[in-house]
Amino acid sequence: MYDLKGLCERAVSCKLEAGLLSTEKKNEALKAAANALKDNYEYLINENNKDLSMAKENGISEGMQDRLRLTKERIYAMAEGLVQVCELPDPIGEVMEEFDRPNGLHIKKVRVPMGVIGIIFESRPNVTADAFALTFKTGNCVILKGGKEAINSNKAIVKVLRDAIETCGINPDVLLLIEDTNRETTTAFMKMKEYVDVLIPRGGAGLIKAVVENSNIPVIETGTGNCHIYIDKTADPQMAVNILYNAKTQRISVCNAAESLLVHKDIAEKILPLLKKKLDEKNVEFRCDEISFEILGDGVKAATEEDYGKEFLDYILSVKTVESVEEAILHINKYNTHHSECIVTNDPESAEKFLNGVDAACVYVNASTRFTDGFEFGFGAEIGISTQKLHARGPMGLKELTSYKYKIYGNGQVRA
Amino acid sequence: MYDLKGLCERAVSCKLEAGLLSTEKKNEALKAAANALKDNYEYLINENNKDLSMAKENGISEGMQDRLRLTKERIYAMAEGLVQVCELPDPIGEVMEEFDRPNGLHIKKVRVPMGVIGIIFESRPNVTADAFALTFKTGNCVILKGGKEAINSNKAIVKVLRDAIETCGINPDVLLLIEDTNRETTTAFMKMKEYVDVLIPRGGAGLIKAVVENSNIPVIETGTGNCHIYIDKTADPQMAVNILYNAKTQRISVCNAAESLLVHKDIAEKILPLLKKKLDEKNVEFRCDEISFEILGDGVKAATEEDYGKEFLDYILSVKTVESVEEAILHINKYNTHHSECIVTNDPESAEKFLNGVDAACVYVNASTRFTDGFEFGFGAEIGISTQKLHARGPMGLKELTSYKYKIYGNGQVRA
Repeated sequence: MYDLKGLCERAVSCKLEAGLLSTEKKNEALKAAANALKDNYEYLINENNKDLSMAKENGISEGMQDRLRLTKERIYAMAEGLVQVCELPDPIGEVMEEFDRPNGLHIKKVRVPMGVIGIIFESRPNVTADAFALTFKTGNCVILKGGKEAINSNKAIVKVLRDAIETCGINPDVLLLIEDTNRETTTAFMKMKEYVDVLIPRGGAGLIKAVVENSNIPVIETGTGNCHIYIDKTADPQMAVNILYNAKTQRISVCNAAESLLVHKDIAEKILPLLKKKLDEKNVEFRCDEISFEILGDGVKAATEEDYGKEFLDYILSVKTVESVEEAILHINKYNTHHSECIVTNDPESAEKFLNGVDAACVYVNASTRFTDGFEFGFGAEIGISTQKLHARGPMGLKELTSYKYKIYGNGQVRA
Repeated sequence: MYDLKGLCERAVSCKLEAGLLSTEKKNEALKAAANALKDNYEYLINENNKDLSMAKENGISEGMQDRLRLTKERIYAMAEGLVQVCELPDPIGEVMEEFDRPNGLHIKKVRVPMGVIGIIFESRPNVTADAFALTFKTGNCVILKGGKEAINSNKAIVKVLRDAIETCGINPDVLLLIEDTNRETTTAFMKMKEYVDVLIPRGGAGLIKAVVENSNIPVIETGTGNCHIYIDKTADPQMAVNILYNAKTQRISVCNAAESLLVHKDIAEKILPLLKKKLDEKNVEFRCDEISFEILGDGVKAATEEDYGKEFLDYILSVKTVESVEEAILHINKYNTHHSECIVTNDPESAEKFLNGVDAACVYVNASTRFTDGFEFGFGAEIGISTQKLHARGPMGLKELTSYKYKIYGNGQVRA
């Protein structure tokens, strides 16, 4: 039986030390960790090869194998990622608010680490180094649970990072990996509320659902994006074409890609053929409502009700015509996943209605939804994109990995 | 079968309207609601009497009956509470951050409502009016689930409030009550993630645990407080006596009352008898470690390990001597519930160590833990005290009932 509780206790024991590390010390360790990754690239590649052999044996797709693969170049990029986090400002200790009460109490609201952060992920092994950098810089301890298919790579990366941390005189338990890949252990981890302050799932819809349904730890839900582009009647046609083309086709597999097109009826006849022509370059399949079907005729499909709620992650687009910006808002609020939505318009009034009425983390006027990203927002980092409203919404950088506490200074005050 | 889903759908349908109400309109409705409570006090008392009769029949304690009772005075106080919320600034629409990106995107981080807030409570019926005022002022829809024993009172209060809201031309579904008091309905409500954006339990440890374990909706955990007073070796004895006496005895049944006393060994012999003498006025039972037991001798009990982890909510105090502020911090972090902790000291260095090292929402130097309260903090309101680190920590006022969205203004930007 894997000693998950023992592992969690080690993280908790390390929490106080991690939270009190100076910015200088944290940056020193991040740089040492970056160098250690580079120095040990051959070891990392050897261990990664074990995962790759297994993947081949198990007939895992070429695409998945590529995601799994570590090369010297990729390891150096991971190291560079750690160095970049050094350059970001340390949010810990920031005085967020400060005020006095009539009874003389002086109150400071100060940014502090979350404590122990759990991250369950199923993607590339580089997430391991990435998650460590962001949680460590914010004074947190992290417990990682990666995918079974990358276990040897993750163990090797964590070993190299932990050794580097220890060399700097820091307790390496700031970074822990759950080495047991049984599903029961993962489920048990979601119940470790006594030890873990916040749990972040990173991966597909199935993983995220499992965490949300099973966890008793506060969760930050990241992920799915059924993003819409609404072309208002005053839209600039060329801009509309560019934005839709970018949002739909620049990278189809990501959460901020567009999945659905809404078009104002007054502009539909003019704009739909232009949009179709451009998206034909990538053979995007249009799934249309009655009116857009009539306009586009051959080469498009009829949409079903379910199509409007789907995150295709593919060269497929659902299409609907609407009578007004209000109808667009209602449609989006019914079908979206609260991720990213865009209006293309030249009418400031429509723009404001859309910005205020659409319920999503990021609402765009005249720009591609593909900008919903921590780096594009200038956060210098990203741990994920939150689609919930509690705590953080949209791209999460360093600040979103912190909490706060109130420090209250008195001189003997008691309550009457 | 109670139509819980139908009720949740009504809240969701009302969300857009609620979020876009102007401050003036919201204040108008709050004032109308306040007047309606006063105008209908006889009806409310009549309905409340049904609950009181039932309580008597069921042999519910006099204390509980008193908590349940509505009087003209209490109804007027509820109304006054609504009026006070009018005077608080409306946080909705506040621009929290605003910045430009090199590609010309202009990004605004704007405060918005959560959407639909669920509140499960088991305390006095006045929570109904209170919860409505705070959620409504922040542009949210609220679904309330009160205790079975107050169902007639809650139904009556909600009816009066909804009628007043409707008179102002606002959809009354901004305020909904789950009228079915079956436990299965409450549990089903905790699973309504599709409709409810955040769930706040208000009540005893059992309720909060049930919500945390069962909910798939993001939860804000409020509640239990195992709060410590640590008397450092440099503490002013009189101040120490006053603070402990206030924190332990001013109101024993609340979460910010002290439950445990830590004393530095160097001052223990001098201060413990003084503390004991003062707390004897309220017959506080001391449960002591070996050293404090020896010092206090007769009239105290020996503490068990479990005593240090207990929220007594009674005239009982666990006592422990420590070698240093560091030992105090470790002890507190092991046993506390991350609520409120205090050091009494004249040494600024010890104070800073304590403030930084203790893991709690509110950490005090030389003041009673009883100040952890939205009103005492000057928030003008309080929906509860969060003991978790995600989203809000400590007293939660209006701002803590909000989320944010990013509004992004472009002129055709697409991602390269």
